Amino acid sequence: MPAKGAHVAVTADVVVAGGGVIGTAIAWRAAAAGLDVVLADPAEGDAASLVAAGMLAPVSEALFGEGALLRVNLLALARFPPFAAELEQVTGHRVGLRREGTLAVAYDAGDYAALMRLTAFRRSAGLDAEELDSRACRKLESFLTPDVHGGVLFPGDWSVDNRRYAAALRAAAAAAGVRTVRDRVTTVLTTNRADDADGLDGADGRARGVALADGSEIGAGQVVVAAGSWSGAVHGLPAALRSAVRPVKGQLLRLRHPPGMPPVLTHTIRATVRGADVYLVPRADGEVIVGATQEERGPDLTVTAGAVHDLLHDAMSVLPVTSELILAETCAGLRPGTPDNGPIVGRAAPGGVLLATGHYRNGILMSAATADAIVACLTGQPPTAEWEPFGPGRFLAGEEGR
Amino acid sequence: MPAKGAHVAVTADVVVAGGGVIGTAIAWRAAAAGLDVVLADPAEGDAASLVAAGMLAPVSEALFGEGALLRVNLLALARFPPFAAELEQVTGHRVGLRREGTLAVAYDAGDYAALMRLTAFRRSAGLDAEELDSRACRKLESFLTPDVHGGVLFPGDWSVDNRRYAAALRAAAAAAGVRTVRDRVTTVLTTNRADDADGLDGADGRARGVALADGSEIGAGQVVVAAGSWSGAVHGLPAALRSAVRPVKGQLLRLRHPPGMPPVLTHTIRATVRGADVYLVPRADGEVIVGATQEERGPDLTVTAGAVHDLLHDAMSVLPVTSELILAETCAGLRPGTPDNGPIVGRAAPGGVLLATGHYRNGILMSAATADAIVACLTGQPPTAEWEPFGPGRFLAGEEGR
Repeated sequence: MPAKGAHVAVTADVVVAGGGVIGTAIAWRAAAAGLDVVLADPAEGDAASLVAAGMLAPVSEALFGEGALLRVNLLALARFPPFAAELEQVTGHRVGLRREGTLAVAYDAGDYAALMRLTAFRRSAGLDAEELDSRACRKLESFLTPDVHGGVLFPGDWSVDNRRYAAALRAAAAAAGVRTVRDRVTTVLTTNRADDADGLDGADGRARGVALADGSEIGAGQVVVAAGSWSGAVHGLPAALRSAVRPVKGQLLRLRHPPGMPPVLTHTIRATVRGADVYLVPRADGEVIVGATQEERGPDLTVTAGAVHDLLHDAMSVLPVTSELILAETCAGLRPGTPDNGPIVGRAAPGGVLLATGHYRNGILMSAATADAIVACLTGQPPTAEWEPFGPGRFLAGEEGR
Repeated sequence: MPAKGAHVAVTADVVVAGGGVIGTAIAWRAAAAGLDVVLADPAEGDAASLVAAGMLAPVSEALFGEGALLRVNLLALARFPPFAAELEQVTGHRVGLRREGTLAVAYDAGDYAALMRLTAFRRSAGLDAEELDSRACRKLESFLTPDVHGGVLFPGDWSVDNRRYAAALRAAAAAAGVRTVRDRVTTVLTTNRADDADGLDGADGRARGVALADGSEIGAGQVVVAAGSWSGAVHGLPAALRSAVRPVKGQLLRLRHPPGMPPVLTHTIRATVRGADVYLVPRADGEVIVGATQEERGPDLTVTAGAVHDLLHDAMSVLPVTSELILAETCAGLRPGTPDNGPIVGRAAPGGVLLATGHYRNGILMSAATADAIVACLTGQPPTAEWEPFGPGRFLAGEEGR
């Protein structure tokens, strides 16, 4: 908590807490809409954004029955390409959007049955899906093992280079006039409370700024908390919202082609190997991302021998040539999970703090559409209807959950 | 090659090319013997020393029939503890010598048969070996899989923390007055040749110093080439010696215990898993080294997905709890291999350059005894008889090989 009478170092129209792709995208779009924005980013980008694979796959992430989540993911998918194009145009950066599509492959008959159920679900959502036998899979990706039972091509599931994308967002934000403060937001400050202890009614106050870890404050009439898996650590948010966001650990690998080896992949591969999911995402620069575990271990960022083994084993099971690639990096990140797997986007109360967190595995996919929704709130517009089920209110006790 | 009339920046009695454990041990002991020594070390320590596991195991590395190599390894093993004790005493460093012994385990019946042959060989060399059934193995190491067929305890096979050992050697050398030049030796300079092109007769000249990559020279009446797998890149050595040393790639992993986990190992484990060898070496500070591949790939230092997978797979096969350890580091080093797997220690010709290279997998084990042998040569004494078969002469065309 800040000291009483702490120094107000900076003032702005809007302060955004969190420098991942969500926070940076919001900061950029808010500044482009004419607002004076400060972005509080303790590091350059956050762990989740840097560790991500950058898949833009709205359905394969949506569980059955999550129709509302599917609708907002489809909104996000439609929004991403023009958003990325504008980003590339204003910055001159390339974000590495790949449009070859995703080839889902099933290792055995049981895996194939599960894939067929997913495919029916995709088609019900109006998305393309082309069933392929093992031979047709290998025609698309010649290094796949002949043991693959079969697959489905999802031509509309793309990918983006998450690190290039994050760097481009930072450049766009800076060019639009966003000021970055290299510190962590500890507390959202509100007008109607002398102190800023946690409380259910923390949502009721009007935001007046934030306190930083160094004890200083940023004054702003609007506060956006986009702190990813760390959102629960921000004081001044209602306790029910803080406890709604939990870190879900993901480990992944960054492989590289040795000098002189031609690319081993063109499409994103999503494989199910005897019930275990693994994906391989190729980058234009020769990188191949292999991921990812999903572990409920709290804020643990260690890379474990077992996870690396299992990822390599599953990847080599479907694409044996993986063994010849260079293991360039092993990493772990924390996804911001929520009880219903949906994001938390909107205001906690009229005039109160805005939240843009809980995007779980879809932070990169949803970043553009989330920025639109938050900028709408900041400028007095309603977000589009797809966001209505994902407001903070659904987690606040004593309120109607949507 | 140095420019004609290059600047002689430094002069000394002895210049040692190569800052691995061999070169640094030689530099320390030569300085302790009263010689003025310069150590040319392009980096702090070299890759092979830093990547090593530090096993002190004279027999398990010796192939059948290599009696001369076994004898020099046994000499090296006997010499190591007092050498390490003196090193610890003069520096105040701890080198992490572990005396719990090595437990060799065999995964299946075929692996066990091979282990029994090795055990008979060890006993023929007069070394202790205690056969253990699966239950007795697990009594020593409770995390071993019950699937292990059986094992043998080698109480005299110890280990040392290679990085601590290397750091202690550097400190001892500095304290003894060794001057370190942070550059690579490109050429050994001899008195009887105007140029320093390669040639069989390069061995005939009296050494007068070395040329460095920056073009300067170090003048010295004695030159020791201890450049490990890079020894073949030193000009001015006879071509037959340069081509006798080749890099043999080894990849290994450094694992760590997560906070709060008690040590999973006490002994070094050498396991054979369906014919594949893997070792696990515990360190006092909670590290566990898992190694190592042996690859004929030239000077390639990449870490490959397949090697990491195989090492983890084999380690987890015998010690399943390995999966819970943190994968702290993956690394690759180059061992200096020779055609007969023996080191090259001694003078190429009377008054000529001294070599101390080609130690293959036994550089750390042999470092103390090698330093003794080279210091004997430098001070006009004969090395002990065990070294006689390992002089450079055995690779020189037109000479009697030993």
